[in-house]
Amino acid sequence: MSVRTPDPDPDWTPGPDGVPPPNVNPGWLSDIELAETRRRLPILYIEAVPVRVDGLGQVVSVGVLLRARPTGEMTRTLVSGRVLYGETLRDALFRHLEKDLGPMAFPQLPTSPVPVTVAEYFPMPGITAFTDDRQHAVSMVYVVPVTGTCDPRQDALELTWMTPMEAASEAVSAEMEGGRGALLRMALASVGQLR
Amino acid sequence: MSVRTPDPDPDWTPGPDGVPPPNVNPGWLSDIELAETRRRLPILYIEAVPVRVDGLGQVVSVGVLLRARPTGEMTRTLVSGRVLYGETLRDALFRHLEKDLGPMAFPQLPTSPVPVTVAEYFPMPGITAFTDDRQHAVSMVYVVPVTGTCDPRQDALELTWMTPMEAASEAVSAEMEGGRGALLRMALASVGQLR
Amino acid sequence: MSVRTPDPDPDWTPGPDGVPPPNVNPGWLSDIELAETRRRLPILYIEAVPVRVDGLGQVVSVGVLLRARPTGEMTRTLVSGRVLYGETLRDALFRHLEKDLGPMAFPQLPTSPVPVTVAEYFPMPGITAFTDDRQHAVSMVYVVPVTGTCDPRQDALELTWMTPMEAASEAVSAEMEGGRGALLRMALASVGQLR
Amino acid sequence: MSVRTPDPDPDWTPGPDGVPPPNVNPGWLSDIELAETRRRLPILYIEAVPVRVDGLGQVVSVGVLLRARPTGEMTRTLVSGRVLYGETLRDALFRHLEKDLGPMAFPQLPTSPVPVTVAEYFPMPGITAFTDDRQHAVSMVYVVPVTGTCDPRQDALELTWMTPMEAASEAVSAEMEGGRGALLRMALASVGQLR
Repeated sequence: MSVRTPDPDPDWTPGPDGVPPPNVNPGWLSDIELAETRRRLPILYIEAVPVRVDGLGQVVSVGVLLRARPTGEMTRTLVSGRVLYGETLRDALFRHLEKDLGPMAFPQLPTSPVPVTVAEYFPMPGITAFTDDRQHAVSMVYVVPVTGTCDPRQDALELTWMTPMEAASEAVSAEMEGGRGALLRMALASVGQLR
Repeated sequence: MSVRTPDPDPDWTPGPDGVPPPNVNPGWLSDIELAETRRRLPILYIEAVPVRVDGLGQVVSVGVLLRARPTGEMTRTLVSGRVLYGETLRDALFRHLEKDLGPMAFPQLPTSPVPVTVAEYFPMPGITAFTDDRQHAVSMVYVVPVTGTCDPRQDALELTWMTPMEAASEAVSAEMEGGRGALLRMALASVGQLR
Repeated sequence: MSVRTPDPDPDWTPGPDGVPPPNVNPGWLSDIELAETRRRLPILYIEAVPVRVDGLGQVVSVGVLLRARPTGEMTRTLVSGRVLYGETLRDALFRHLEKDLGPMAFPQLPTSPVPVTVAEYFPMPGITAFTDDRQHAVSMVYVVPVTGTCDPRQDALELTWMTPMEAASEAVSAEMEGGRGALLRMALASVGQLR
Repeated sequence: MSVRTPDPDPDWTPGPDGVPPPNVNPGWLSDIELAETRRRLPILYIEAVPVRVDGLGQVVSVGVLLRARPTGEMTRTLVSGRVLYGETLRDALFRHLEKDLGPMAFPQLPTSPVPVTVAEYFPMPGITAFTDDRQHAVSMVYVVPVTGTCDPRQDALELTWMTPMEAASEAVSAEMEGGRGALLRMALASVGQLR
């Protein structure tokens, strides 16, 4: 099975009218350049596990994206995307949360820049738990409470809210692409919600 | 100089009319029993550094309490208090934030139970950076964004908001009791705000 | 089932001749006093997951203790014990590692005092994942590489080395007392070894 | 002042005879390609603060590199270098520790892949505390105990061991390039050694 780090349009950022802006940043890469660079360097990503918390900050549910693959297959994934040249990790995290959850999700970004875990994706399986057939990607993973309404956009068809126990289950893990079931469990462990 | 972990009424919890409830929990200790126990066991505390964050989760200001000592001396301190028998760390954190910042502070408790640092207070100086002449206390320290209005109660006279740079300064450190200047700097470091 | 935080002789410390020293520290408690205090205050513990690492620091195996209960039942557990009055967390961690793994284990204690997770044990089930019918205990959990030979002492009959995958399995979790299967998984997650 | 992330020969790895091997990895970049890519993508780095610890894991001294700049100026810096295509973070960490401290340093790499902090370097000052006039670099920072003999190689002229207090001082900070004084303080805070 071919799995990929979801990043269909890494440079996309919401404009006032929903139209992607032209690539005015000289740091942005054409598709060909990006494909070339991906065979040369580890590419930096952020990933986020959106959660709902109770009044004491405890995670009560976990948001998992359901995405249709070009082959028609459905897979589960996390909020994810590339960090662009000149962009801070916080900016990238906010941009991808908005891209995948819509502008009304009202995420509460973490105060600390330290990720809950770091996932290393390689094209070849067996080096780590994570694979990405397109590239060597290193992903900083964060748990992000959202307080608003999530309205997935683009190719993410649906956001499913689950209990921490469901999210950690074998059934959900088996549907997640690139080994992200392990990532989801590590994120749950970091908030004390793994049994 | 005699410094102490501020805990003038550790069992106090706000009642609907502001009157402390009677000690109905058999786990609660009389003053004499507490004084006795403090010479026998390390006492578990929580401490919190209240912060204001911007839209990207970055800490922009830090709240420090100014407290009048019975001697008339003014010292700076953090939100702090004992964890009671039967109480979770989250409950204790919420209770002491409410006690020190008032009911309208709307703190966003962390999703993770892991503290940003652990402070060990001993009656005798020199073992760690932290001292408390009353007891051996072990304190789990958290950084907590607050979104509402802070209205310090009880013996905390004032909550001062500072920039991270001011909060980390020598001047502020020198005014903090029990070595908590170091604690404040470690908390700032944990959110990437120490220069 | 009655589960307990293993602490058969919390004040024990190895003497030159293996004989426990008399209780000369006024901070130490008699059995009756300790039983009384346990109904009044949360008791501070440390727990350690001993691991073997490869040359790059990656965890390759995990040590789990097998302990005979007075009832003859066998349960699995972690290195665990109380923090005494006047003792630093590092001292307590070292003392309990020596008590449970012997003097030749050569543990490499972590540079950071921040635990990988915090486990809250309550006598009544359902508050957290962890229970201890004797007390309310709050435990700071650390992952500790050991480089020497482990020779369990006292009532710990055996130390079993497992792969991270075995240690995270349902079978091992079911044999662990007080909900520590969850703790072991969270510790594995913290070192990137949970799948 | 022009500061740079020290990476004079990022692909260098010690051969048996000390001769750099030819670039056989197709993922490696020529100098021109690397310069080009650095204007297009954030580049992933690791940085390490080498430390000496006592028998309880407490940091007692901190290693800081003294490096001669081509201009003759001396600056202080940390162990630092790029993560190559196909290389894990642990491999990169080990390689750069060996490059900067020699083959007999015997570093104890952390069990956790989570860095103590993440430093974001930008060519333009003011975005974060860190600058690098060559590139946008994102650096995962680790504290690494070393147990052997450090013998700095290449352009690092000297490794200086300091107490944590000296390492956190204004004097040392002022000599560190690219804002790394702040990084060193954050690393010290993460191990509870900042006052």
